[in-house]
Amino acid sequence: MTKNRRIQLNERDMPAQWYNIQADMPNPLLPLLHPGTKQPIQASDLEPLFPMALIAQEVSTERYIDIPDEVLDLYRLYRPTPMHRAYNLEKVLDTPAKIYYKNESVSPPGSHKPNTAIPQAYYNHKEGVKKMTTETGAGQWGSALSFATNFFGIECKVFMVKVSYGQKPYRKSMMNLWNGSVIPSPSMETNAGRAFLAEDPDCPGSLGVAISEAIEVAAMNEDTKYSLGSVLNHVLLHQTIIGLEAVKQLEMAGDFPDLVIGPFGGGSNFGGISFPFLRYNFTEGKKTRCIAVESATCPKLTKGKFEYDFGDTAGMTPLIPMYTLGHKFIPPAIHAGGLRYHGAGAIVSQLLKDNLIEARSVEQIESFEAAVTFARAEGMIPAPETSHAIAQVIKEANIAKQEGVAKTILFNFSGHGLLDMGAYDAYFSKTM
Amino acid sequence: MTKNRRIQLNERDMPAQWYNIQADMPNPLLPLLHPGTKQPIQASDLEPLFPMALIAQEVSTERYIDIPDEVLDLYRLYRPTPMHRAYNLEKVLDTPAKIYYKNESVSPPGSHKPNTAIPQAYYNHKEGVKKMTTETGAGQWGSALSFATNFFGIECKVFMVKVSYGQKPYRKSMMNLWNGSVIPSPSMETNAGRAFLAEDPDCPGSLGVAISEAIEVAAMNEDTKYSLGSVLNHVLLHQTIIGLEAVKQLEMAGDFPDLVIGPFGGGSNFGGISFPFLRYNFTEGKKTRCIAVESATCPKLTKGKFEYDFGDTAGMTPLIPMYTLGHKFIPPAIHAGGLRYHGAGAIVSQLLKDNLIEARSVEQIESFEAAVTFARAEGMIPAPETSHAIAQVIKEANIAKQEGVAKTILFNFSGHGLLDMGAYDAYFSKTM
Repeated sequence: MTKNRRIQLNERDMPAQWYNIQADMPNPLLPLLHPGTKQPIQASDLEPLFPMALIAQEVSTERYIDIPDEVLDLYRLYRPTPMHRAYNLEKVLDTPAKIYYKNESVSPPGSHKPNTAIPQAYYNHKEGVKKMTTETGAGQWGSALSFATNFFGIECKVFMVKVSYGQKPYRKSMMNLWNGSVIPSPSMETNAGRAFLAEDPDCPGSLGVAISEAIEVAAMNEDTKYSLGSVLNHVLLHQTIIGLEAVKQLEMAGDFPDLVIGPFGGGSNFGGISFPFLRYNFTEGKKTRCIAVESATCPKLTKGKFEYDFGDTAGMTPLIPMYTLGHKFIPPAIHAGGLRYHGAGAIVSQLLKDNLIEARSVEQIESFEAAVTFARAEGMIPAPETSHAIAQVIKEANIAKQEGVAKTILFNFSGHGLLDMGAYDAYFSKTM
Repeated sequence: MTKNRRIQLNERDMPAQWYNIQADMPNPLLPLLHPGTKQPIQASDLEPLFPMALIAQEVSTERYIDIPDEVLDLYRLYRPTPMHRAYNLEKVLDTPAKIYYKNESVSPPGSHKPNTAIPQAYYNHKEGVKKMTTETGAGQWGSALSFATNFFGIECKVFMVKVSYGQKPYRKSMMNLWNGSVIPSPSMETNAGRAFLAEDPDCPGSLGVAISEAIEVAAMNEDTKYSLGSVLNHVLLHQTIIGLEAVKQLEMAGDFPDLVIGPFGGGSNFGGISFPFLRYNFTEGKKTRCIAVESATCPKLTKGKFEYDFGDTAGMTPLIPMYTLGHKFIPPAIHAGGLRYHGAGAIVSQLLKDNLIEARSVEQIESFEAAVTFARAEGMIPAPETSHAIAQVIKEANIAKQEGVAKTILFNFSGHGLLDMGAYDAYFSKTM
């Protein structure tokens, strides 16, 4: 009579390999191009920025890649993560749909980001790297990398977009607690930063500038590598631990999804939950619909073009074959900082081009309405990024109601909103 | 070779009864006294404030009390909570001690408080109550009660100490999100509040004043009851779900604790984890040491007197037989707001008087040192209250090292510190 709300894997059942969708994609990826020569890049081109193990994963077509024991051990600080059946939400929506969510908010930094931060720190450590740099917007990624590098004694330097540095002081505090150093960007530490400040001493910064600063420091220093929290293939690979666990958990519940939904910024959130289900479409004829949900203010998947573009604003990265709004595109300052990226990763872009996945966009106000409905029904307070997926889930549950079909919907509850309560205040006070 | 860091109960193994230590205490509790007559209070004296079901639990001597199905169902939103073996911390401390922690921070409000907020809201709802009032300091309890009343359509009014209302805006936002209304106290809504403001219009408030306001509203309104988040017997009863789960989880790990440690404010945190283990001392001759850890700034257990005293500053509550610093005692504004209470609950006080439990006090600076050590080793960021327990755990682990004994230590990780990062900033900037 009492409902089983949660499906929990035992530690011993946690997957020990990541799933590499490159092994199963009908069309292989186009190569990355060198920003100077416009020729396909070589591994050696990336070596100043990344350890060899990650470069190898970036281009690997092995279907499964072993997760090192040391990474599994640290994953166990918060994994396997729970899956919940959202009975209360189903009741509020009066829908025949079955709604499940995978709860990645239980990690210490509060999101799915450590799933790749830990292996990235591990592989860097193994190759003798002593310092890492990265950029962060709202701070989710910077705090995840600080959390991870701390375990390996790697110094972590995070260039945090200056306006966020002021707005989200608690994220900075988290990074400091885990021994990360945080520098408001643009800074005086790099040529890129100094040039920007010379032009505008009050410059509020942008993700593009912060990326340029972080890359510059890594490129200039032998003992320092750079790290990215989304977009790249190896990042999405690491995040498949989410979907691999979810496959097992739904199996425990005797279910399989008709729909898999994830928020979409650069691809790690959506790819993490959906790729292990897409595999069944490719290899077993399943027809699960996988929907990437982006912000309507930054609609690269629904309104962008598929073309070669830079990963950063300054044009320092390789050219990536992707859906993009152009690398100069500056999205408005929405609260879902993780969705404010001009492009999509190469894998997701190729899958969308081939009509193997779907994309939708959601307005900010709609995402907060959905977040409030969810928090009042299920208790958990979603991050603004996660709320975009929830808005789409609610739409699909309403469609299921109209159609009278008991669809099974799974979404990625990718992070909590406890450090984003100011955004909820703005929503309630109608100042959003 | 990989270590099992986490011990997870299945939902079906979640305890379905609370444990009532009053059934097993060698010496029964002294009665509460009426504040006017000084005679033992009757159930009818408490009826304006509490539903009958909770009044009955307050004086019950039944050993086990069934948890209603509706409460179990809502517990399942976040329970059973995980238990973790703190391998990383053990390694950092280089101790032979085995350290386990019960992770109550996974609830949506972020602490153990919903364990009693849910049944309190349920019993009120069952008896037709439409409105509830309470007080909150830092906001943990107020957010837990808002979270719980929201499920039953009960209006929740929280009097929040004015200085905290200004300092912890995110806690207020959480309460609003869950449909709680939050009033900075002292307020113009009550006689008590108006009197205080007449005396001092800039009064920053105190927990004592806020309690008086919340009680006044409940006493004056037929459809409104009052709710307390600690101290009372029924509150501690509900919290035993923590220790009852922990008993099962340690059994799964093939272990039993030599030491059980919990932070101590009014008793719900410490009582929740320790009472189910104390039962084995009373009935099976076990000798588990249970240690309540209070703030050195508010040392009622280690420096207070055992005597009849009021539960609030204004002297409106029944007289409680307890260790107290005097109901006029105002503790300094430490960051662990949950430990700033002048007295101890009756049960814990009687147990301490009978030498059946132990008490220790910890300085604030020591609690933050411990919190940082823990967060860097295990990842999770503890609440300031929780950090007091961790400081004691570290002391005990060091003693175990000196003695060369592999003691088993269990503590209550009662809440996360994500909304307390400002306190960590103060610690790191040495402005604490």
